[in-house]
Amino acid sequence: MKLTIDVRARDGAARTGVVATPRGEYRTPVFMPVGTRGAVRTLAADDLERLGVEIVLGNTYHLMLRPGEERIDRLGGLHGFMDWSGHVLTDSGGYQIFSLEPKVDDDGARFRSTYDGSLHHLTPERAAVIQAALGADIQMVLDVCPPLPSSADVVRTAVDRTAAWAARGRAAFLAERERRLGQGRDQAQFGIVQGGTDPVLRVESARRTLEVGFDGYAVGGLSVGETRDQMVEALATTMDELPADQPRYFMGLGDPVGLVEAVHLGVDMFDCVLPTRLGRHGTILTSAGRMNLRNARFADDDGPLDPALDGDGTGRYSRAYLRHLLMSDEPTAARLLTLHNVAWTLDLVARMRAAIEAGTFAALRREVLDVWATPRS
Amino acid sequence: MKLTIDVRARDGAARTGVVATPRGEYRTPVFMPVGTRGAVRTLAADDLERLGVEIVLGNTYHLMLRPGEERIDRLGGLHGFMDWSGHVLTDSGGYQIFSLEPKVDDDGARFRSTYDGSLHHLTPERAAVIQAALGADIQMVLDVCPPLPSSADVVRTAVDRTAAWAARGRAAFLAERERRLGQGRDQAQFGIVQGGTDPVLRVESARRTLEVGFDGYAVGGLSVGETRDQMVEALATTMDELPADQPRYFMGLGDPVGLVEAVHLGVDMFDCVLPTRLGRHGTILTSAGRMNLRNARFADDDGPLDPALDGDGTGRYSRAYLRHLLMSDEPTAARLLTLHNVAWTLDLVARMRAAIEAGTFAALRREVLDVWATPRS
Ligand SMILES: [Zn+2]
Ligand SMILES: [Zn+2]
Repeated sequence: MKLTIDVRARDGAARTGVVATPRGEYRTPVFMPVGTRGAVRTLAADDLERLGVEIVLGNTYHLMLRPGEERIDRLGGLHGFMDWSGHVLTDSGGYQIFSLEPKVDDDGARFRSTYDGSLHHLTPERAAVIQAALGADIQMVLDVCPPLPSSADVVRTAVDRTAAWAARGRAAFLAERERRLGQGRDQAQFGIVQGGTDPVLRVESARRTLEVGFDGYAVGGLSVGETRDQMVEALATTMDELPADQPRYFMGLGDPVGLVEAVHLGVDMFDCVLPTRLGRHGTILTSAGRMNLRNARFADDDGPLDPALDGDGTGRYSRAYLRHLLMSDEPTAARLLTLHNVAWTLDLVARMRAAIEAGTFAALRREVLDVWATPRS
Repeated sequence: MKLTIDVRARDGAARTGVVATPRGEYRTPVFMPVGTRGAVRTLAADDLERLGVEIVLGNTYHLMLRPGEERIDRLGGLHGFMDWSGHVLTDSGGYQIFSLEPKVDDDGARFRSTYDGSLHHLTPERAAVIQAALGADIQMVLDVCPPLPSSADVVRTAVDRTAAWAARGRAAFLAERERRLGQGRDQAQFGIVQGGTDPVLRVESARRTLEVGFDGYAVGGLSVGETRDQMVEALATTMDELPADQPRYFMGLGDPVGLVEAVHLGVDMFDCVLPTRLGRHGTILTSAGRMNLRNARFADDDGPLDPALDGDGTGRYSRAYLRHLLMSDEPTAARLLTLHNVAWTLDLVARMRAAIEAGTFAALRREVLDVWATPRS
C-alpha cells in the first residue's frame, strides 16, 4: 500500500509529518535503530518501548539464514517473533550480500552464508518473498549498491540493474500482496535510487524507480565512502526528483552531521548502526560531541554521560561507573552505552522535529554543525 | 552493628524474618544475586529494582583490583557507584584468592592480580579496611576455605587460621567503625564458620567464631565439592551452634535443592552465581526443571521460558525467539536469560517464605525435590 506523509510543518525543505500505516502511525523525521538479527544488540522490545522507538530495522540477510524467514513467519512475523508492536522495516539483504563479494549477474546474486558456508541465491523476486514472510511493515526492493568511489561503468551498471530489479521486485511484491492481505498483514515496499555521486545518473535512477512506482522511496548508495559535500550534492539532486507526498528514506545514515544535513534537504527516515556500534565500543554521543569513555579522565567523573540529556534511563549512572564496567568487559556497559546513544540520537531527531515546527531549524543545524563538523554555509 | 532477625514465622526449623539495618530492611530467607564487578553481569541497578532484589553481593577481590576500593569510596561507596539503594554485601575476597593458589601463611595471602599480574597481599586487617572503603552494608571476615575433599590436616589448619583471622579481622573492623559512623555509614561484619564435613571441627569452628563475636554468621566451606548428604549434615551441625536471633548465611549456594534444604535447616541468606551463569550459557530454570534452550526442540516453541512464572519481564518473549538470539550470539539473550533465572530464583525463595508462613513448607520442599532431585526422606 502506498504510504503518504501528512506534512505537519516545513522550515525550508526540512519537514515534519506523520505516516499512517495499517500498524499505526510514525512521526517523521524518524531514526530507526538497527535490529540486525531480530534484536537491537543488547536490547529487547521492552527497551525499545521505553526509548520511544517508532520503527526498528531488521536485516533480511541475517534473518533469512537464521532462524529463516519461514520460521519467523510461523512465529507471527518479526512483530510476533520480537514481541514488538511498533513498526518494522526490513532491508533487502543486498547491502550485506554485496559486501561478501558474491557472484552477481542480471538474475541476482549467489553467495555463501557467513554462518555455515551454505550456498544461497538472492534475486529481486526472492528478496520480496522473503521479506513478505518476515512480515515487516515496510520492505525494501533489492538494488545494487556499489561502494564509492567506483568507476563510471560500475555506477552505470548498478543503475541499470537496480532499475531492472525494481520492476521484477515490485511485480513479485504485488503478487504476494493478495495472500498477505488475506492474513490481515499488509505491507509497503520502498524503491531505491542509486547513481553514485553523478547527478545525471541520480536523476535517471530516480525517474526509472518512480516509473516502476513504489509505496515510498529511499536514497541508496550514499554514505558509502564519498565526501560530505559529494553526499549533500547527490542527495539534493535525488530529493528534487522524489514525490513530496511520500516518505523519503536515506539508508545507512546516522551521524549527527549527516542527520541534520539530510533533514535540511527534506529526508524523513534514517537508519544506522553507528549509535549502537559506537556504544558497544565505548564511544558516547553527547551535546559536547563524541567522547571515548575509556579515556582515563573519566575514571573519577561522577556526572552522567550527557548532562543535557534527561530521562533516557542511563542518566543515573556515572561516567566513572560506566567506564569501570567498560574497562572490565562487563556486558552491562555495552547495553547502557547502547541505550544512551540510541536515546541521544532519538533526542536529536526529536529536537529537529521541534525546531522545524518552531521555524528554528537553521539555528539547530548550526548548533549541531558547530559541535560535530567544520561549519558549513 | 549487630544485626538481629525479627522472626515472623516458623515451620520446623525453617523461618521467615525481617532484618533491620541502617539502610532499611530485608526479608529472609533472601537470595542475593552476585554483582562481581559492581554489576550483576548484563544487568544494572534499575534491573535489580524491577526484579525486587533486596541484597546484591559484590566481590572484594575484583573491586579492590578494579577500579580499586579508594576510587569506589570517593564515588560514594558501592551504593553510590552502582546507584543502588538496596542492600549490599561484600565477600572478603578470600574465596577468589584461594582459587589462584596464593602463598598463604599465618599473616595472610600473597597473590597476583588476574588483571595485570601485580602482586598483592590480603590480610584479615586489609580485608576489613578494603570492605569498609567499599561501603557495603555487610562485610565478611577473611577466612580460609579449603575445597572438599581435603585432608584432615588441611581442614584443621583452615579452622585454626580462620579463628585467628576472625579475631584480627574483627579488631580491624571495629577500629574502622568510628570513622565510618562519623561519615554516617555504619556497617555490619559477619563471621564465617569452617570445618569441612567433620562435625567436631564444625562445632569447634562455630564456637571459636562466636567467641570473637560478629554481627551475623555465615556457613563457609560447603557447596565446594562434598555430596549433598555431607553438606546437609555439616550444615545441620553448624546451624545448631549459631545464635537464633541473628541472620545465618550459607555462602555460595543457589541451586533449588540446596536452597530448600538450607531453608529447611533454618538458613536465612544465600548467594550464588549459578542462576546468572546458567542463564548466560543458555540454561533456564523452570518449574519443570532445568532446560538447555539450545536444544532444537525449542526452535518453534512460542511459549514463555516458564509458564508458571508471571511478571518477571521476560515472559513476553518466546523460547523460540530467545533460542534464536542465543544461537546467534546476540547479547540480548544472555541478559534476558539472566533476568529470568534471577527472577525464578527470587520467586522460589518468595514461595518458600509464603509456605513457611502458611505452615506448608514440607509440601513445597517435597515439590522442589520431586522436580530437582532424587526424593529424600
Ligand atoms: Zn544517557
Ligand atoms: Zn522469565
